[in-house]
Amino acid sequence: MIDRRELLGATAALGFVPGQALAASGDLKAIRTAADAGAAASVARIQEWIRHPGIAAENWQMEQSCAFTMDMLRDAGFQTVQKMPTVGQPGIFATLDAGARRTMGIYFMYDVKQVVASEWSSPPFDAALVDKPGWGKVIVGRGAVNQKGPQGAFLGALHAFRAAGKKLPVNLVLVAEGEEEIGSPNFHQVVQAPQVLAALKRCEGIVIPSAWQAKSGAVDINLGAKGMIEVELIASGEAWGKGPKGDIHSSLRAIVDSPSFHLVAALQTLVGPDGNTPAIDGWFDNVRPLTARERQLIALNSKASDDAERLSALGVKQWINGETGTTAAERLASQPTVNIEGLVAGYTGPGGKTVLPGRAVAKLDFRLVPNQTAKEAQAKLRAHLAKRGFGDIEVKVSGGYDPTETAETSRVIRAQQAVYARAGAQATLFPRLAGSWPGATFTAPPVSLPAGQFGLGHGSGAHAPNEYFVVESSNPKVQGLVGSSMGFVDFLYEMAAIS
Amino acid sequence: MIDRRELLGATAALGFVPGQALAASGDLKAIRTAADAGAAASVARIQEWIRHPGIAAENWQMEQSCAFTMDMLRDAGFQTVQKMPTVGQPGIFATLDAGARRTMGIYFMYDVKQVVASEWSSPPFDAALVDKPGWGKVIVGRGAVNQKGPQGAFLGALHAFRAAGKKLPVNLVLVAEGEEEIGSPNFHQVVQAPQVLAALKRCEGIVIPSAWQAKSGAVDINLGAKGMIEVELIASGEAWGKGPKGDIHSSLRAIVDSPSFHLVAALQTLVGPDGNTPAIDGWFDNVRPLTARERQLIALNSKASDDAERLSALGVKQWINGETGTTAAERLASQPTVNIEGLVAGYTGPGGKTVLPGRAVAKLDFRLVPNQTAKEAQAKLRAHLAKRGFGDIEVKVSGGYDPTETAETSRVIRAQQAVYARAGAQATLFPRLAGSWPGATFTAPPVSLPAGQFGLGHGSGAHAPNEYFVVESSNPKVQGLVGSSMGFVDFLYEMAAIS
Repeated sequence: MIDRRELLGATAALGFVPGQALAASGDLKAIRTAADAGAAASVARIQEWIRHPGIAAENWQMEQSCAFTMDMLRDAGFQTVQKMPTVGQPGIFATLDAGARRTMGIYFMYDVKQVVASEWSSPPFDAALVDKPGWGKVIVGRGAVNQKGPQGAFLGALHAFRAAGKKLPVNLVLVAEGEEEIGSPNFHQVVQAPQVLAALKRCEGIVIPSAWQAKSGAVDINLGAKGMIEVELIASGEAWGKGPKGDIHSSLRAIVDSPSFHLVAALQTLVGPDGNTPAIDGWFDNVRPLTARERQLIALNSKASDDAERLSALGVKQWINGETGTTAAERLASQPTVNIEGLVAGYTGPGGKTVLPGRAVAKLDFRLVPNQTAKEAQAKLRAHLAKRGFGDIEVKVSGGYDPTETAETSRVIRAQQAVYARAGAQATLFPRLAGSWPGATFTAPPVSLPAGQFGLGHGSGAHAPNEYFVVESSNPKVQGLVGSSMGFVDFLYEMAAIS
Repeated sequence: MIDRRELLGATAALGFVPGQALAASGDLKAIRTAADAGAAASVARIQEWIRHPGIAAENWQMEQSCAFTMDMLRDAGFQTVQKMPTVGQPGIFATLDAGARRTMGIYFMYDVKQVVASEWSSPPFDAALVDKPGWGKVIVGRGAVNQKGPQGAFLGALHAFRAAGKKLPVNLVLVAEGEEEIGSPNFHQVVQAPQVLAALKRCEGIVIPSAWQAKSGAVDINLGAKGMIEVELIASGEAWGKGPKGDIHSSLRAIVDSPSFHLVAALQTLVGPDGNTPAIDGWFDNVRPLTARERQLIALNSKASDDAERLSALGVKQWINGETGTTAAERLASQPTVNIEGLVAGYTGPGGKTVLPGRAVAKLDFRLVPNQTAKEAQAKLRAHLAKRGFGDIEVKVSGGYDPTETAETSRVIRAQQAVYARAGAQATLFPRLAGSWPGATFTAPPVSLPAGQFGLGHGSGAHAPNEYFVVESSNPKVQGLVGSSMGFVDFLYEMAAIS
């Protein structure tokens, strides 16, 4: 999941770029009329989608959720909609042939993150319509912004084309997965299926619909994202041959080794004396330094960024080493990381309990930058631990992506800039998202497509309670659902026309 | 809580020691008859006690539990029974003046450990009577062995004296607390109240009733116990001034410090390269090496101990450094420890979650040996951390006891040996319990009394589900409730007569 509104506050002014798609302005007007007429249906479509959830992490209602999504694609005009089995949850492959010159790829997901219903103001799968001060009328529900709202806005665009009697300016190839929230472990099986791969190869690029306008209307355009591996390190008496199998009375600590201290010692080797810099053998071998253009973009962005405001919003008193401005921004974009997501051992309740735990677990994520790979990172981590006497510690990799990059000169990026500019949304070009998404599935061989997020509109709360998506915006700088759909309409025209 | 059946498997034969109390054998017979006649009432008394629980950790029913316990003491013949307020739960001070030459101290607790009722075979406060294969008829309930069964057996002895028309051979001073299960934070306020201290000063020693006979009938006599401090180390962005206050997205790890790695670095300094030996500055300054007699006792015990069996029972493949026999036993008795009871940071559920946690907690216990003190240990831990740049890490001490020691030559210990020998229970003298109990409250100034556990009979499952206490033993080597009461009768006679 990409939550980069919290990552990036900077915006840089981009002048108005006359779009090639203005030639289609008559069509645009008719489609806008159709989109307005279909607004209520479009809202209801997203609500129904939220009411048909599937949670891959719990293997809950995945069949129904997949089937419902396939029906929505057929309903939106896709001519072929195929379920694509994988060793995990099935994916979806859909095509819409408009007889156009160019073809555009679209990426959907149909699974959603788990919920703790008691934490929500309204039941997470009710998809309640709520007035949200400062934003307008929103749908509250799990999946509202991640990704059923933005995806619904995209489908709303297709419905508007049809209702207006207009042909799509590009053909569409859509691939969807049901395991995004568990790290897309099998999505490559979908995109690399021969017929899917052949279809994707015809595409100009691929986008994941988004809705990340800030209150100012600003959006970011990311030219890539860090990769990552997510790992559990598990120290246990069982595997170590020292320490207890289960939890035993802590008085025995005098004569029994501690798997927890064994884990602590292993963790301590992963970072340098500053507690930050990755210290895994060979970790920086393939790290590519920032290019001059990347530095230029970062410098531009950090000028417009207010460090004090960002620190305060995050509840952080200082960045690493007290760095600020461009230095911190370069570090954010360029540095691989070693992060402890969680620690679990022994007694975790209130107060204490005199046990010597038989097992200790650290949950880690490692963000990767070009040209590191997830495969390389796993191998180096294992070798590093083994070399230092921690070969018994289980390295359980639950997910991983390679870093992803898309050229600034690609049509997908240039079209975004044009559409955002026409919409009056300041678009900041950022060399690399510090978060991760499975973009490398598309940008790396064998698919090798430009890939990025695109969308107007706003929603937030992905993975959190009260996730929402704005359907009627009370802020003139931010698009509601119809405006978001029209952004996709313009984007498809732009992709058809851009040189 | 002292759970030392899992600590000590060794038993050493002690020959039969003719007790001085044999002179009172006529009285003993009459009391035995009374005890047999009162057996059903004695069982019912323990059941009712279990049915009046108080849980200090939850501040649940403490008033009622205290009042019920005070009534039981009055009912057993204590002439003065006073509630002793503390800043926490009240204690109890009771006296029974038999006009005897000597006075004996008794320690009770009236609080019990928390329960998870769903884990029990019968409701934990029902005090069900159950046939337990290999042991006989038992009471199942929270507090059955820790401490209401053994304490009930002691009160049963007092009832038997009275029913037989016999005077107690010693006067009694009883002190009780309601906070044993939360580390006795305020018990010193009870024992050091002027009238209580004065009464305790008249005692020969003090015992906590126990019921720890093994299947062979064997018991251990501990000449002391390690002390301990229980501590939470809390690293937080808030206190550190680096890292986030709350959990933030893990992609920010590139520019935000990690309180979790800060905690890991601090933990790593607490032990030496072996992962075991305490490495806190000055930790060994006051550690007294084993005496020649302590080494002798350990050597005796370890000869009788089966290392392979103990390792297997604990699910441990080897002791520290692969040590065995006397070396391991000496280490167990003599070495202070640094133990991680638990680790908690960030996301602790299944799989991963891409957060950079704002807070990381390690729950630790440090066992202390003579002449370390709990106060010294806290101060040294804080100084050690501060010196190494971890002064921001909160050191939250939830409890602590000094080590406790009672001389082998004290009447309390010699009387135990005599009574156990008469009962045919092999008694192993062990220099020091590797676990901890608040014995130093009695053995250290200003009280300065010999203190120990004493009791025949059997129960187990303290702090666990299905805790039980044997009331009718099916094993001739192990005493039931009446036998346990008669052990206390003999012990009081022995304490009166021993030279």
